[in-house]
Amino acid sequence: MTSAMGHEPKDTLPFVEGGITAPRGFVASGVSAGLKKSGKRDLAVIAAQRAVPTAAVYTTNTMAAAPILLTREHLSSGRCRAIVVNAGNANACTGVQGLADARATADAAAAALGCAPAEVAIASTGVIGVPLPLPLVVAGVADAVEVLDAAGAEAAAEAIMTTDTFPKRMAVAVDFAGRRYVVGGMAKGSGMIEPHMATMLAFLTTDAPLDPDACDAALRAGVARTFNRITVDGDTSTNDMVLLMASGAAGGEPIGPDGDAFAAVSRAVAHVCGELARMVVRDGEGATKLIEVVVRGAVSEADAEAAAFSIADSPLFKTAVFGGDANWGRVAMAVGKSGAAVDPTLLEVVFAGVTTCVEGTGVLFDEAAAAAALSSDEVLVEVDLHVGDASATVWTCDLTYDYVRINGEYRS
Amino acid sequence: MTSAMGHEPKDTLPFVEGGITAPRGFVASGVSAGLKKSGKRDLAVIAAQRAVPTAAVYTTNTMAAAPILLTREHLSSGRCRAIVVNAGNANACTGVQGLADARATADAAAAALGCAPAEVAIASTGVIGVPLPLPLVVAGVADAVEVLDAAGAEAAAEAIMTTDTFPKRMAVAVDFAGRRYVVGGMAKGSGMIEPHMATMLAFLTTDAPLDPDACDAALRAGVARTFNRITVDGDTSTNDMVLLMASGAAGGEPIGPDGDAFAAVSRAVAHVCGELARMVVRDGEGATKLIEVVVRGAVSEADAEAAAFSIADSPLFKTAVFGGDANWGRVAMAVGKSGAAVDPTLLEVVFAGVTTCVEGTGVLFDEAAAAAALSSDEVLVEVDLHVGDASATVWTCDLTYDYVRINGEYRS
Repeated sequence: MTSAMGHEPKDTLPFVEGGITAPRGFVASGVSAGLKKSGKRDLAVIAAQRAVPTAAVYTTNTMAAAPILLTREHLSSGRCRAIVVNAGNANACTGVQGLADARATADAAAAALGCAPAEVAIASTGVIGVPLPLPLVVAGVADAVEVLDAAGAEAAAEAIMTTDTFPKRMAVAVDFAGRRYVVGGMAKGSGMIEPHMATMLAFLTTDAPLDPDACDAALRAGVARTFNRITVDGDTSTNDMVLLMASGAAGGEPIGPDGDAFAAVSRAVAHVCGELARMVVRDGEGATKLIEVVVRGAVSEADAEAAAFSIADSPLFKTAVFGGDANWGRVAMAVGKSGAAVDPTLLEVVFAGVTTCVEGTGVLFDEAAAAAALSSDEVLVEVDLHVGDASATVWTCDLTYDYVRINGEYRS
Repeated sequence: MTSAMGHEPKDTLPFVEGGITAPRGFVASGVSAGLKKSGKRDLAVIAAQRAVPTAAVYTTNTMAAAPILLTREHLSSGRCRAIVVNAGNANACTGVQGLADARATADAAAAALGCAPAEVAIASTGVIGVPLPLPLVVAGVADAVEVLDAAGAEAAAEAIMTTDTFPKRMAVAVDFAGRRYVVGGMAKGSGMIEPHMATMLAFLTTDAPLDPDACDAALRAGVARTFNRITVDGDTSTNDMVLLMASGAAGGEPIGPDGDAFAAVSRAVAHVCGELARMVVRDGEGATKLIEVVVRGAVSEADAEAAAFSIADSPLFKTAVFGGDANWGRVAMAVGKSGAAVDPTLLEVVFAGVTTCVEGTGVLFDEAAAAAALSSDEVLVEVDLHVGDASATVWTCDLTYDYVRINGEYRS
């Protein structure tokens, strides 16, 4: 992306093939359990060889779905052996039966794997308010456990897709003190096989010997400026979850939540989170452009984040980017409504590398250059409030005809 | 609108012809000053015979435009003689020159009317970041003052339109203690002749002898559950303003901010605010449906309002209504992300008169009946949280292909 404000280069780490099973000590699979009408893969299992340190962060939506409630309960121990993910049915707004169905799913996985049910995490995405077709799920879990394989990452990543147009996988390595740690992951974005609710799920694995506290700390730090800094339409699903399992198969002493080894692994976790998060936005429903909104010069990071989200969530801004219009007035409007401390006479806006507003006032700019820069599938919008030193970056996508089409269709 | 929850009937008051000049003591006009490329009317003046009690509420956007800053200053006296409104240029993000241009506009109106500049309020809507073409505005103000007329309400309502598809006028009468008070008004909605920013402007007049405090109190009460309860896309313009002038021409003793006479006039002000606010939503950019979202059973009115706005601002919900889909799952999601206190096992959702969710769980419902109810151009969505006694109503419109088209076009 072109920057006129000295944009920082992204962190880079060596890419590794293999996605969620790139780290040693994990197997995965993806099967068709009959939950997607298309017959495509719709149930994934990721498993370690034993219960390993595992942490997760969950949707803040107070209508959290049954799988969220159950996984929160099971992960209170800080460890799990496997995670079962199904697409095609979110098991949300399904009441007491929904929680019983989630438990039955965990029971089935535990029986197949030979572990305790409390060592199984569950995630679901798809239609809400419809009871989970439990017999299909239970049979699918048995099938999936049967074919667990160190080469199963691709099938697993496909199985969790809904209206995603491509599977989202990533793995990187980080070297520290003579050891190589690998962090892998997969994600699904906003979209469902039936247009009910957008759910974001991501699963990460590492072979670093993180202890449970370190696993939790690395995940929270990794999510903070990645998955927590993306938005497609400002809506928050009942089923969102990001989870990290640490097998320890890379060997070495356990890593606690501080020190240089922890920092190295955390950097890799944040890197994978960032790459997956940007894939989710790029594949937002109907999206044609990935938009990076950077707000600098804020009084606090919270202010910078509020201003960046206000821009990124503005339908007027998002449609302007779709239309290839360097409409900095909508950026100014969104900053103004964000609640962030601003001085209207200091605002600077650089749209796709073109300075459009200085000291709160529009400046003449090369419309042709701006239109050319906006024709890219990645658009950088930079704002400097010039009232402080804090900054934040948020990623979003444009708002298009296809978003309306995908979400406005009758349920089938 | 069909209600399955005993929806309260709307307040009714006798309709009066004449819009903004229906109340005695006001004249208005609308002329073409050359600000709209189409050559249509683009400058309106509303005037009383002398400086009369006047109150206004303004955008909360911290990037407030020059006309907002000037009007706030001029109305600190609680009185004004006239308001000048131009479409075609918002005079926003125009810096020091913008404020000077707003002052020059007020000066021109004051000279033509023979009053002090501080007795003139200014409002602007249209393209932002472009200097006001002051000579055109000054000439237009002189022309408009020249043709001020008690029959000028229609021309004035037309002159403030931008992408509005119809002029928005309303007047009602209220009888109290042998006197008839009239409240009139006009508004413009979200949309501009150039697609930069959505601005909402509304101007009300009354011949009731409200004193300045009563004028302010009646306006704030009137706006609270009307203009402050509508949303098209969640964006807030730099130029929003709602203003009320009270001529006192109906006669009688001055009315202070309490008592039965005040209550009667306030009721009429709120009624006109409500009708104009709903017209603004119905004419939202690309809208095909007016959506009324009622949240009941909340712990507080603030919670009810937060939940209602969360639903009304959700792109997923708005596209579902556009598609004629009784997608209650998106309502549940929006309630859950609103921050309102909820019990997931108590949520009830009635979509266009059809009960779709009870005790937090989906129920079988007649899809054909729901689709038929949703084919109306007014859709009522009712939510009962069943955790308290407070309620709130918010109005919005659907999110359509035309919203994307109108706001995604290149600037011309």
